[in-house]
Amino acid sequence: MDRFVAERLLRFSDCDPSGIAYFPAYLNLLNGVVEDFWQSLGFSLPELIKGRGIGTPTVQLDCQFERPALFGERLTFLLRVVKLGRTSLHIAHEITGTDGVKWSARQVLVATSLTEHRPIPWPDDVRGSLYQHFPALSAGPN
Amino acid sequence: MDRFVAERLLRFSDCDPSGIAYFPAYLNLLNGVVEDFWQSLGFSLPELIKGRGIGTPTVQLDCQFERPALFGERLTFLLRVVKLGRTSLHIAHEITGTDGVKWSARQVLVATSLTEHRPIPWPDDVRGSLYQHFPALSAGPN
Amino acid sequence: MDRFVAERLLRFSDCDPSGIAYFPAYLNLLNGVVEDFWQSLGFSLPELIKGRGIGTPTVQLDCQFERPALFGERLTFLLRVVKLGRTSLHIAHEITGTDGVKWSARQVLVATSLTEHRPIPWPDDVRGSLYQHFPALSAGPN
Amino acid sequence: MDRFVAERLLRFSDCDPSGIAYFPAYLNLLNGVVEDFWQSLGFSLPELIKGRGIGTPTVQLDCQFERPALFGERLTFLLRVVKLGRTSLHIAHEITGTDGVKWSARQVLVATSLTEHRPIPWPDDVRGSLYQHFPALSAGPN
Repeated sequence: MDRFVAERLLRFSDCDPSGIAYFPAYLNLLNGVVEDFWQSLGFSLPELIKGRGIGTPTVQLDCQFERPALFGERLTFLLRVVKLGRTSLHIAHEITGTDGVKWSARQVLVATSLTEHRPIPWPDDVRGSLYQHFPALSAGPN
Repeated sequence: MDRFVAERLLRFSDCDPSGIAYFPAYLNLLNGVVEDFWQSLGFSLPELIKGRGIGTPTVQLDCQFERPALFGERLTFLLRVVKLGRTSLHIAHEITGTDGVKWSARQVLVATSLTEHRPIPWPDDVRGSLYQHFPALSAGPN
Repeated sequence: MDRFVAERLLRFSDCDPSGIAYFPAYLNLLNGVVEDFWQSLGFSLPELIKGRGIGTPTVQLDCQFERPALFGERLTFLLRVVKLGRTSLHIAHEITGTDGVKWSARQVLVATSLTEHRPIPWPDDVRGSLYQHFPALSAGPN
Repeated sequence: MDRFVAERLLRFSDCDPSGIAYFPAYLNLLNGVVEDFWQSLGFSLPELIKGRGIGTPTVQLDCQFERPALFGERLTFLLRVVKLGRTSLHIAHEITGTDGVKWSARQVLVATSLTEHRPIPWPDDVRGSLYQHFPALSAGPN
């Protein structure tokens, strides 16, 4: 794999009075996709957070919304890992519907100690799993 | 005025199991602040959407999250209008707590026909009110 | 079938700073399960709402929360239709985890005209599908 | 005081594609009102939860939704404490708009140890403040 793919239905609760996706609901869906991505790597977020005290807060998020999505549409979330830093993880998201790309996003997560709320290096097993699943992954300094 | 300011309490519902603000909840709060901003200009979103059939979807959103915010913190949302295009509106947001800037965002909205889901020029009265409230506002082509 | 079953993962976004499910998030999940239930009957909510102008608002909801559910738990939503009135639909929900019943709910929905926001009789095809899928369904006057 | 009152605007994010309040969003608003109620008694939820390890989960919730509320409506939340048990608190909610009662709810909360997730007696200062603010409050066994 060099990508992670998830399908989502755009539900009633994700849409707004103008009939289209509400963008904070989009980001809620995105967060769930990232949760499933961690699971696919063999690390559940509940285990990371509750078992190891490691959070993965988002420090940067850049979104382009290109086409509206309507209540009832099926969306494909495509996630690619683009860079692995010492404490950070850079992800590119592309979300498509039947008429093409709905929106895309660049997201930077940082491994964080939940006791001190400070960045920490990714644990070796997390780093190892990321390189195993994304062989072409480039490493960065931070 | 050359800025719009709103206060928000970080509520139980805005926070996650790691005890800090959940970023999609942040964007939900931001959307409410923009709603209050429209009201302050004399245009309620319900009136724009239901009365005139004009939506204001977000087409671009770039966020930097700098410091975690904890359940119970009071946050100040500072909104500045930085550019007015023919169909777009560029906003800069800065959100601060007692320890400094928590996060900031650049947001681009576009006036949209809710029947055709296409960009439309801002109505003259909306444009007029924006220039009246933000005299230093620069105009852009789109 | 005399019941509809759906599985849900309790996600990060569904939990609160005390580490357990946030009850409004539970009801959001419940609403999605009811959405899937309609789909299983052959009537998608988008089609009912946008195509036919029929809403299905909840007019009564009684919940008992028995055991907390933790971030990462898998929950089974069991939905039974208990009564079909002229304009109403009575549903019983039971939500279980590995340690037993987490919570249960009784919900009454009403078919509603979205133009007049008034109850209307269930369309014949909806009524027919409900009786077909739930043969033991008792009919009530309202 | 024998009641607590709060005003809320029904926001864009609280409404659904059929143009009216989404009921899980209503319960999210309700939870925020209860949060403000605790604050008015002199006990902030962040302090109870994080400082004392006491949660206040909802164990029962019965709602009647009578009239739809539309995007942009202003709602008045009226909260009355109806019974104080050893570990429980019974609350009656009534939510009104300009056209009358929109919905009402009965809610039972239970003081809970967040380490053991078990009911505990209300602390004496919480009990004292409740009796002081609601002199007519009847006491119950649980």
